[in-house]
Amino acid sequence: MLAFPKQVQIVEVGPRDGFQNIKTFIETKVKQQVIDGIIAAGVQAMEVTSFVHPKAIPQMVDAAQIAKAAAQAAGDTFRGLALIPNLTGAKKAYECGIREVTYVISASEQHNLANINRTREQSLEDLQKIVTQVPELAVRLDVATAFGCPLGGKVDDEMVVSLIESALQIGVQSVVLCDTIGVAHPKQVYERARTVKNRFSDVSFGLHLHDTRGMGLANTLAGLDAGITIFESSIGGLGGCPFAPGAAGNTATEDLVNMFHGMGISTGIDLERYLAVVQMVREKIQDVLTGHMAYARQYDDI
Amino acid sequence: MLAFPKQVQIVEVGPRDGFQNIKTFIETKVKQQVIDGIIAAGVQAMEVTSFVHPKAIPQMVDAAQIAKAAAQAAGDTFRGLALIPNLTGAKKAYECGIREVTYVISASEQHNLANINRTREQSLEDLQKIVTQVPELAVRLDVATAFGCPLGGKVDDEMVVSLIESALQIGVQSVVLCDTIGVAHPKQVYERARTVKNRFSDVSFGLHLHDTRGMGLANTLAGLDAGITIFESSIGGLGGCPFAPGAAGNTATEDLVNMFHGMGISTGIDLERYLAVVQMVREKIQDVLTGHMAYARQYDDI
Repeated sequence: MLAFPKQVQIVEVGPRDGFQNIKTFIETKVKQQVIDGIIAAGVQAMEVTSFVHPKAIPQMVDAAQIAKAAAQAAGDTFRGLALIPNLTGAKKAYECGIREVTYVISASEQHNLANINRTREQSLEDLQKIVTQVPELAVRLDVATAFGCPLGGKVDDEMVVSLIESALQIGVQSVVLCDTIGVAHPKQVYERARTVKNRFSDVSFGLHLHDTRGMGLANTLAGLDAGITIFESSIGGLGGCPFAPGAAGNTATEDLVNMFHGMGISTGIDLERYLAVVQMVREKIQDVLTGHMAYARQYDDI
Repeated sequence: MLAFPKQVQIVEVGPRDGFQNIKTFIETKVKQQVIDGIIAAGVQAMEVTSFVHPKAIPQMVDAAQIAKAAAQAAGDTFRGLALIPNLTGAKKAYECGIREVTYVISASEQHNLANINRTREQSLEDLQKIVTQVPELAVRLDVATAFGCPLGGKVDDEMVVSLIESALQIGVQSVVLCDTIGVAHPKQVYERARTVKNRFSDVSFGLHLHDTRGMGLANTLAGLDAGITIFESSIGGLGGCPFAPGAAGNTATEDLVNMFHGMGISTGIDLERYLAVVQMVREKIQDVLTGHMAYARQYDDI
């Protein structure tokens, strides 16, 4: 029988992973309204921006401003995170007051080359520089294509385990397995999560699952069953991976929260307040969302 | 740990539950092409039409023609089913050669009144007439709103169990629990499925799960874990319940099949051939589907 915990932690990635996939520039004050709304709804951890070069992703040109606000909002009940692609990004994030960053390396060499123009080895060398030169930053490793790669195909345990092992030796604090293109199925999620948890039993693992093939929540369930309690998701389901053909749609935070609450698993999030922010996203950023709860009636008494 | 079987049976309901929700009349020959395509892809059981009054659902005016073709196609590897709302429908279905029908009663009295203008008791009386007067028909009971009702709210075990008990005494052969409005969550699906299976251990149970809140596949997983191996789904995710506000989208057969095959659970269905029929549905019936696989790239080597 399926096992699940009393409580989980949701890491909101909409303002980073979602917004970066939107071509039209979103005004900084609109971004800030969404972020503030998400925090007010009770989300306790959020990737608010990405310190990539604005030429690569112009949407993130206001990273410093957004990061500074998140650093100010940080406290006992909220952690603001930023994605950083390299040492330059890490330094900038730190200067803005960010103390926890996400660093992405793909399990698949081909995807890492396509996504960030580095071999896995080069990415690990850059990670070493970050950890050495900005030691005050806590670094989370996002293992992209942890369940399959659109370019290289199958991704096996060894590709994932070897990457995690190297990153832990260098000094990351936690790890997130990312189903970048939404190809994972529940059996695979369960087995891979068990493999890494057994192998690195003192490390905190999260899951970042896409809903491309409708399995976002089913895979979440499999992750819960494997003992994972940290899940990354995006408001409205915004996002995907711009360099992975066919990849569309993070799992929507509101869909996750609705399922968790139904099952009696607490998230600390007020779903009604969160859904009001989803409506703001529809009005101000993108009307058509891949998440479900924006369109489903509420039946509070059921 | 999650348990799952080696094999499941999918009951396709698109030509009935899907088509009946489409307002524009679909030419009979197009319906037949879709049905033939679904059979050719390996689907072994399908609700092909509904013997409702054409005034209630004009889309089903060609029920007799479709049913006769399905009766001719029936054999060792295919069963053609029809939905019947009453004795008149049962007689018509039988005359067309149909030998297995679906009869719907809602667990919720309010929904039964809104959906078919009968109390549960009246529906059971009609069932008695059907079983008595057309004894050659095998009858499946679809328990609508088995997990929650948009009108009456909470649906508890007793409402479901009492309905099943009455219907079994009258003489139905099997039972399908239907999440008519997509409010069920995995814990509820698991528990309710276990309850009815334990209570009626010699009865075959299926699940009909909607994806309204994105939980279609997660609930499927919970059903598998509870020992259910019969799942109803609809091509492209077509359908819903026209009398349940906010209800949109069956779980798409192709999404289910993709997940099952990924997990090593066989369905007898050739997914590639089935997806070709999904494309035909997009071209000839409805371009925008709620199912996911129509839009997701295939990564055969993953």
